[in-house]
Amino acid sequence: MIDLEQLRDCYVTTPSKIVMLVVDGLGGMAHPNSGLSELETARIPNLDALARKSACGLTTPVLPGITPGSGPGHLALFGYDPLKHMIGRGALEALGIDVELRPGDVAARGNFCTVDSNGLLVDRRAGRIPTNESAPLCERLGQIELEGVQLDVFPVQDYRFVLRLRGDSLSELVSETDPQITGVAPLPAQPLSPEAVGTAQVVNRFLDQAKQLLAEEERANMVMLRGFAQLPDLPAMGKVYRLDPVAIAAYPMYRGLATVAGMEVIPTGHTFADEVETLQRHFNDHDFFFIHYKPADAAGEDGDFDAKVQRLEELDPFIPQIKELEPDVLLVVGDHATPAVLAAHSWHPVPFLLNSKLTTGEGIDAFNERTCAMGSIGRIQATQVMLLALAHAGKLNKFGP
Amino acid sequence: MIDLEQLRDCYVTTPSKIVMLVVDGLGGMAHPNSGLSELETARIPNLDALARKSACGLTTPVLPGITPGSGPGHLALFGYDPLKHMIGRGALEALGIDVELRPGDVAARGNFCTVDSNGLLVDRRAGRIPTNESAPLCERLGQIELEGVQLDVFPVQDYRFVLRLRGDSLSELVSETDPQITGVAPLPAQPLSPEAVGTAQVVNRFLDQAKQLLAEEERANMVMLRGFAQLPDLPAMGKVYRLDPVAIAAYPMYRGLATVAGMEVIPTGHTFADEVETLQRHFNDHDFFFIHYKPADAAGEDGDFDAKVQRLEELDPFIPQIKELEPDVLLVVGDHATPAVLAAHSWHPVPFLLNSKLTTGEGIDAFNERTCAMGSIGRIQATQVMLLALAHAGKLNKFGP
Repeated sequence: MIDLEQLRDCYVTTPSKIVMLVVDGLGGMAHPNSGLSELETARIPNLDALARKSACGLTTPVLPGITPGSGPGHLALFGYDPLKHMIGRGALEALGIDVELRPGDVAARGNFCTVDSNGLLVDRRAGRIPTNESAPLCERLGQIELEGVQLDVFPVQDYRFVLRLRGDSLSELVSETDPQITGVAPLPAQPLSPEAVGTAQVVNRFLDQAKQLLAEEERANMVMLRGFAQLPDLPAMGKVYRLDPVAIAAYPMYRGLATVAGMEVIPTGHTFADEVETLQRHFNDHDFFFIHYKPADAAGEDGDFDAKVQRLEELDPFIPQIKELEPDVLLVVGDHATPAVLAAHSWHPVPFLLNSKLTTGEGIDAFNERTCAMGSIGRIQATQVMLLALAHAGKLNKFGP
Repeated sequence: MIDLEQLRDCYVTTPSKIVMLVVDGLGGMAHPNSGLSELETARIPNLDALARKSACGLTTPVLPGITPGSGPGHLALFGYDPLKHMIGRGALEALGIDVELRPGDVAARGNFCTVDSNGLLVDRRAGRIPTNESAPLCERLGQIELEGVQLDVFPVQDYRFVLRLRGDSLSELVSETDPQITGVAPLPAQPLSPEAVGTAQVVNRFLDQAKQLLAEEERANMVMLRGFAQLPDLPAMGKVYRLDPVAIAAYPMYRGLATVAGMEVIPTGHTFADEVETLQRHFNDHDFFFIHYKPADAAGEDGDFDAKVQRLEELDPFIPQIKELEPDVLLVVGDHATPAVLAAHSWHPVPFLLNSKLTTGEGIDAFNERTCAMGSIGRIQATQVMLLALAHAGKLNKFGP
């Protein structure tokens, strides 16, 4: 939606304020015993009361049947077509550990591995060495100097790290070096397009030096690189929608996704209470706030139905605190479903509500998958949520004469 | 959907099995007396019971208001955008009588006609001569030899036949020779594009020789050709979705449509009981089964409401037989609606159900247009059905990191 040139003149700046609360992994599925979903099981009186005064519906993050990762799930909510604007794995991994990525930087997922005296892979994960072993090795790799390229290596966890290359004319179109099996040598990086020849050479020089620097290590004596990626070149959300948008998120990946969309990130603490406090403190300074609630997704991914119910119940008391700020539009949306019964993200449409002074209720008495399916907004693409928010906030003028 | 390059890496081969039962002309409209549709009138306890344990919805075959032919209706269900991948009339006519078409072949619909001594059309249908008269004439036309082109003529019914041209560099971009009125001469074929010059010459040589061969006939003394068409060049369904898909269909056209989608066709008998028996016998050998039920459409086309009700009731007892095979996903879908009150295909959305171990029911108590409109899947494009089936079968990995 954000790409629609035809709408560019409709967006208008006003003092009204929009809060978009993204509940990560919001949607769920019925528990086989009760026949009720996590949202239907949870005691969430404030969300239910809000739904009674809201316009509700279901969002399709990408397409029916398509299970989105966090990247596509969030980009869609910000209005970007997730099939058009893809975030590569290396870039998302970097964003997930708060590594700054600038346009043109190439990020890759790296991992330490073990090779034998002939250079053949013995263990693709270097015995899963712990972070306290891998972090100093990352520091050592960071010393590597390559002409014309700034190089940084950031530990992620255990045997995993991020390589960031910064320089002119770098390309993400470089092949992975992990052969996915043991007994063979790691692959050299190869250019997947003519413009990537230089980058592939840089990567191979890095790998050569890494091998030498790690030669004496018992387990982590080599590295492999995957998922070379640059940031997608997105139109800035604030510029297109004529907003001053900010992000408040305790987890680095979601701050990263917000910066990809051109949002400013406001530093906050580690809990959702910290995030709400940050929202309160900065509420006068901006007109669009993306605030992220992570715990529901984590519990869903763990396959813990009761924990996901509890995480939703823990979110509920914050709703009145956010409402007290009197945003002109309050959205409660999800980037995707994470049904505990699947212990994973899923393709199911995600309930959402939009509360504004124009929403006086529609006979829905609770906030969940079943009720939102009956909501007045119906089923929409997640990319269309922003348009509705802008409309309810008086920020979207008439289209066409 | 099948064209979406972005999803190519999401498809994964697994042992799970999908059965797609296409009930031709499934959807209907309310009878003016009862206010109930064919599905609502029919006693279909097994379909109703299945719907209670399924996710339901409505498919839009092409666009709201657009009535699809059998070609677009089926291609959409297999995932092909029917506005992008069109099957020409000649090709569909050929598929409908089991004429083998290879890539590059050009097929045309032919009909015998009557011309006067000046070569002007007197009867565009040659007095609707019966098949037993036209079949020997088709054999005679099949004797025509044209340099560099293999030529075959297949009787269809009454005055209609199919001409198949096989050779190098043939093109479908040739104009029709039927002027649509009498009192004028049949038109010569003309190339509609430079690359069709050779094909138009071949066609005109065929018409010249046909005229000579038929000169002594009283009624069928000339032929006209329409709907020149080659097979569309579709990505094979099995290759894109990483499936081993097969088709079981008693009627040739549906076998033909399946081969266009790259499916293997399993020979079967003339009844749906034969088809189900074929499904049972081959169930272990493949992972995707398209099985086609024709009679509901035929009754709808006849405008016979009661007969369509009966054809749906006759389908119902086969549902438990298919369920007994324990497919991981069972789809009951329609290629389009054929309301008996219209005695024709129609544009109405078509009810469908998707049954898997993840569908535990959604409070729907019957399988028909009205209930499916309340289904948890909602209204989707028919092209999206395959994505949902693959998702429920565990054959569709997460999109994006």
